[in-house]
Parts: sequence; C-alpha cells; structure tokens
Amino acid sequence: MTDYSYRISRLQLELCSDGIDGALLAGTDQMLYLTGWKEGGAERFVGLFVPAEGEPIFLVPAMNAEQARGTPAAIQNVVGWDDADGWISPARGILCSWEAQRRILVDDELRSVHLIALQSLLPQTQFVPAGEIMCRLRERKTPDELRAMTCAANLIDEVFEEVVTQLVEGMTELELADLVLGAIRARGSTPSFTPLICFGPNAALPHHHTGVKALARGDIVIIDIGCTAESYASDITRTVSFGEPSDPDAAGIYDLVLTAHLAALSAVRPGATGEAVDAAARSVISEAGYGDQFLHRTGHGIGLSVHEPPNIVRGNTAPLTEGMCFSVEPGVYLTGRFGVRIENIVTVTATGGRSLNAEPGQTLRIVSAV
Amino acid sequence: MTDYSYRISRLQLELCSDGIDGALLAGTDQMLYLTGWKEGGAERFVGLFVPAEGEPIFLVPAMNAEQARGTPAAIQNVVGWDDADGWISPARGILCSWEAQRRILVDDELRSVHLIALQSLLPQTQFVPAGEIMCRLRERKTPDELRAMTCAANLIDEVFEEVVTQLVEGMTELELADLVLGAIRARGSTPSFTPLICFGPNAALPHHHTGVKALARGDIVIIDIGCTAESYASDITRTVSFGEPSDPDAAGIYDLVLTAHLAALSAVRPGATGEAVDAAARSVISEAGYGDQFLHRTGHGIGLSVHEPPNIVRGNTAPLTEGMCFSVEPGVYLTGRFGVRIENIVTVTATGGRSLNAEPGQTLRIVSAV
Repeated sequence: MTDYSYRISRLQLELCSDGIDGALLAGTDQMLYLTGWKEGGAERFVGLFVPAEGEPIFLVPAMNAEQARGTPAAIQNVVGWDDADGWISPARGILCSWEAQRRILVDDELRSVHLIALQSLLPQTQFVPAGEIMCRLRERKTPDELRAMTCAANLIDEVFEEVVTQLVEGMTELELADLVLGAIRARGSTPSFTPLICFGPNAALPHHHTGVKALARGDIVIIDIGCTAESYASDITRTVSFGEPSDPDAAGIYDLVLTAHLAALSAVRPGATGEAVDAAARSVISEAGYGDQFLHRTGHGIGLSVHEPPNIVRGNTAPLTEGMCFSVEPGVYLTGRFGVRIENIVTVTATGGRSLNAEPGQTLRIVSAV
Repeated sequence: MTDYSYRISRLQLELCSDGIDGALLAGTDQMLYLTGWKEGGAERFVGLFVPAEGEPIFLVPAMNAEQARGTPAAIQNVVGWDDADGWISPARGILCSWEAQRRILVDDELRSVHLIALQSLLPQTQFVPAGEIMCRLRERKTPDELRAMTCAANLIDEVFEEVVTQLVEGMTELELADLVLGAIRARGSTPSFTPLICFGPNAALPHHHTGVKALARGDIVIIDIGCTAESYASDITRTVSFGEPSDPDAAGIYDLVLTAHLAALSAVRPGATGEAVDAAARSVISEAGYGDQFLHRTGHGIGLSVHEPPNIVRGNTAPLTEGMCFSVEPGVYLTGRFGVRIENIVTVTATGGRSLNAEPGQTLRIVSAV
C-alpha cells in the first residue's frame, strides 16, 4: 500500500531545504501522487495546500468535500467552498495561517485565472512552478511503481496484438480506436490517453486527431495507445502496413526509425543525459537526410502522468538515474505521404536501459488486407 | 459558415475599447471559438496571439504547425517551436512586435507554468484573465449557434430515451455509460463530457466518478449526459428509479426538485439576474428544509464549452439577455441514501425562458426492473 504521508513528508523536506513556505497542488497528477485522489474541478478551484511544516489542507468545491475526506491519504482537514461565496476567502485563510508566504510553489497546471487571483491576494509572494520539486519526488520509480508500470506495459502490448489482427478495409480510425478501448476495458484497465490512430497520409501528422478516414490497402497505420495499472501509465506506438505498402519508401523508413530507436535504447544508462539519448536517435535519422522530418523530442518521462519529466531532448543535461522511466519514440513524417514512429517505454537499470514493452517488429509488419 | 475573421475583429474592438494591447488564448474553447480549431498541447505551449491591431499569430509545437495552418480561420501566420529550443524565445518575439505590452489578456485556462514564464519575460506587464471579455463575445448566442445547440439538445434527449429502457439489474455504472457513448456515436455526435452515471447512494455525490457499482432494484439512478452538434454542447440530467424506490422519500424529493426546476425556469427573462433565477429554485428547496442539501449553483452557461458564463448563482447580478443559454439544474443530495437532480438547458427569449430539451417527467419515473 502506498504511504501517502511519507510522500507528503518528502515534499515538505524539499520545501524546507529550498526555503519555500508551502505548496499548492491543483487537481492533477501531483494531487494524485500525494493523496491517491484527484478531481480536476473544471472551472472550479480544487487545491491541496501543503505548508513546509504542519498539516496539509484540501480546499475543494462543497460538492466534492465528501470525496476529499475519503481519499487514501486520509487528510483530515477539508474545507468545502460553495459556488456563491467562492474560494478566494478560504484560500486566503489557509495561506495566512502559514508561518510565511514569501515563496509558494504552484502546480504547473493550475489555471492562470486562479494564479492571478492568488497573486492579487499576496502581491509580495513569489509563486514558483512546482514541477521541478515534484519531479525530484516522482521521477525515480520505486519497485512498486515499476511493477505497476510493467503491468500496464504488458497489458498494452496485449491490446496491440489483439487489435492489429482486426484491421479490415474500410474501417475508420475511430472504429479501430473503439476496438482498442474495448480491449483495454476487457482487461479491467482504463486508457491512459485517447487512442491516436492514423491511417495513410494522416500518419504524417504526429498529433493527428483520430477521425473518420477509412482504411485502404497500402496504408501505413500508426497505433499510439496506452492504458493504466494502479493509475500508472503505459504508452506504445507501433507502425504497420495494411497490405503491401503503397509507398515504396515505407519499408526503408521503418528500418531507419527502428535503427534510431535501438540506438537510443543502447545509449541509456545511469549518468547518460537525456540529450545524449536524443542525439543517439537523432543522428541516425539526420545522417540519412531526414533530420527535418523528425519533428519532436525522442521521448518523455512517464509514470502517473503520460508525459512527465525527464524529457529526452537536446538541452536536458541532467544525468539519468536508476528507476527513471521514459518513452523512446523517434519518428519520421513525410507530409502528404506517411509517417513511422516506434515507441517503447524504457527504464534505467543499474547497467543500462531495459524496455518494459515487447520488442517492436524487426521489419515493417505487413498486416494482410482482408 | 462561421465568420472567424469577424469574431477576431470583435475581440480586437473589445481590446481597443478596454485599453488592452493584445490577447493570448491557449488551446481551449476560446481558441476554438476564434479559429474553429483547438489543440490542448498537454504540457507543450499552444497559443493564439491576437494584438489589439494587426494580424493574429499561432505559436504551436512544430508537429502541430501543419494543423494550425489548416484551421477554418485560415490564419496565415503560424510559428512552430521545437522541443529542443522551446517556445519562450518565439513568444518574446511575437509580444515585442506588438505596439505595447502594458496589459495583456491571458486565457483563464493557460497553465500557471506558462504564465509565470511570460511574467518573467515581461515583468512590467499586467496580465488579465481573458474570461470576462471573451464572455462578452460568446454569451449571447447567434441564431446559427442556437440552431446547433438545439440540435445537440434534441440528440441527447433521444439518447436518454434510448438508454433508460436498457437498465438491467446488475449492470454497472460504466456499462450504462458505454451504452450512452454508443448511442451518441450512433447519431454521428461526440460526448461533450464523460457520462456521469450514479446508482443508489452514489447519486448523493453531485460529482461522483462513474464506476463499477452494480444496479440494484430500488436504486435511484442519475444520468447526467451531453453531446455536441457542430461543436456546441448539450447537457441534461434525468433522475429515475429502477423499480419501486427503496427509499420512501425519493418520490417526494423528486417532486420538490421538479418544483424548484420549474420555478427557476419561470424566473428566466431578459433583465432578470442569474442570482434571481438561482433564488427562485433555492427558495423552494430551502423552504422545504433541504437548503443545506442543495450543494451547488442552480446552473452554468453553456455553448462551445459545457461550462461557461453566465453562472446562475447568488452574486451574479448581471442582467440576463436574449440569446444566453444556461443549465437549470437544482438538486438535493442525501448522503448515504440518494440524490435527485433535474437539468435542462434554457435559453433566454424576448419574453422569458425556453427549454431546449424535452420537459422532464412530472413525477419520479419508475423504470421497470428486469
């Protein structure tokens, strides 16, 4: 069982050592990490106030107060605010009960409208994004967390194998996404993000919106999917061809992206940097002349959040350490034609990098077109 | 066809008249309203920069640049930023090209981490939440918008009638939610929010998370669902009993909430205030002794966003005007027992309020338990 009071104590230690008076987490994965619960609240303010010393307090909409009292963290102090009186006045009360209000961490994802209100309340306070300190707590996974992530990885590998055999001519991207969602649900899991399914030229858009394009023979198919186990996320991408690829370059680009993927995996070890792993993949693709078609970083950290630190990108010079988990997902995108992306989740071990997922196919997989 | 350049011009007029130098909209419904497109970007910055005078510019992740170039608004200026170099430097370039940077509107939903970065860039600038000015543009619906909202309302009424007959003993809340999603999809629509399904005591939690509770005879069932038409949202709540209600107070509470609902509807007219409509519903419930069990505002505006201004709540003293659309959704929640909520979307006409949805049942509907 997760020890939430330990997690909150660790945060408080970090606050003290950085000279920060307290932290405000919104209804995000930061709140989930610290309490086992989150409630976004949409336009309504939801906050967990953690002073550097003392007891944390939830400030939530009145209609969520009962849920906040029942979280796994069993935080006893819950203040419900009502729609007519608003959240500002109780927030002032909580913040002013802290010993000082010189520097306060705020959740990176807190809405600007809420931050601006807090800045008006406390004009002398410096508000600092919480991401960096929360990252120190979250980026090295414990054995329990790694077990959950491995479970999520195995589940999504199974889901991919199940749905890839169900491709049929004329089905839409959304219909394939539904098959993915059904296969995730059938395993007692939930999606970690909306399935990203791209057929044919749509595969050239890394963040395409899954839509009504119908599958045609010769289409390249990108399947980018994830699910959860105990709230921890998985995230894989596989690229296959539906029948013989209509584009003569598809198999070659697949080989190139796979080589880049494996080069990045080989570069992972404790002490290596995120930018070194990125460079390992990027140099393979650049040397083949497709550097401008690799439009994004090589990877992102993953855990309770699908995207979290560390980023595998130029400029990230912090050393990787054992227990970190991140995606390795180089891609090449040829506008109007197709794209290839190959993504596994990798964890840093004592000696190198280990993929939590099954190995991707060694050549472009041809799914027979029926 | 929506005239996006007209919408942007109207925003620019408001900026000029309020002495604001420009606006930054994030990948939210504000961007959707102004351009016909939105891309949340997750942790990546996505922005639409609209100067008080001159051309708007998109600043988006490089991998979304092609999508940004193809929006219905046909905005020609698109800057793609890449993961290695980040978004700060191009954002500085855009903002410094504006005539002045004294006061800048920022999207209410912009992440705090992005706002804090902008405040560091421009320490003399006053950043103001964009919500109020965007509300002036969006809260009175045009005939085209009302047509789309009526279409969405009719669709969700149909969906409710379809699924309410499919309740069976032992089904879970999630399974009913799946039926809702399937019925929405079958009509060529998309959900406007995750279906909120509550069985039995879960109905006492206004923002319960739809889960694995199995339906039992005598359970009160709350079905809070919505879908879209041309991106405009619907949102209804119906409360029924699966078989004869096991709680002897259920039918009486239903009658009470319905009376409150109808009282609020009757109070809607141009010139009435949001708080007057709230009071009309709340006084009915308070006089019956359940005021403390009506935990939320009577309603929220709706349009492209499921929740947007105007709020129907104490403290909203602005007059309602023709074309506004909002929910009327009083509720009573009896912890550990059940809850009742009845919600329709209402629009303000020249003479009063008109519900876009079918009338709710006049008494607690008993769905035969099979």
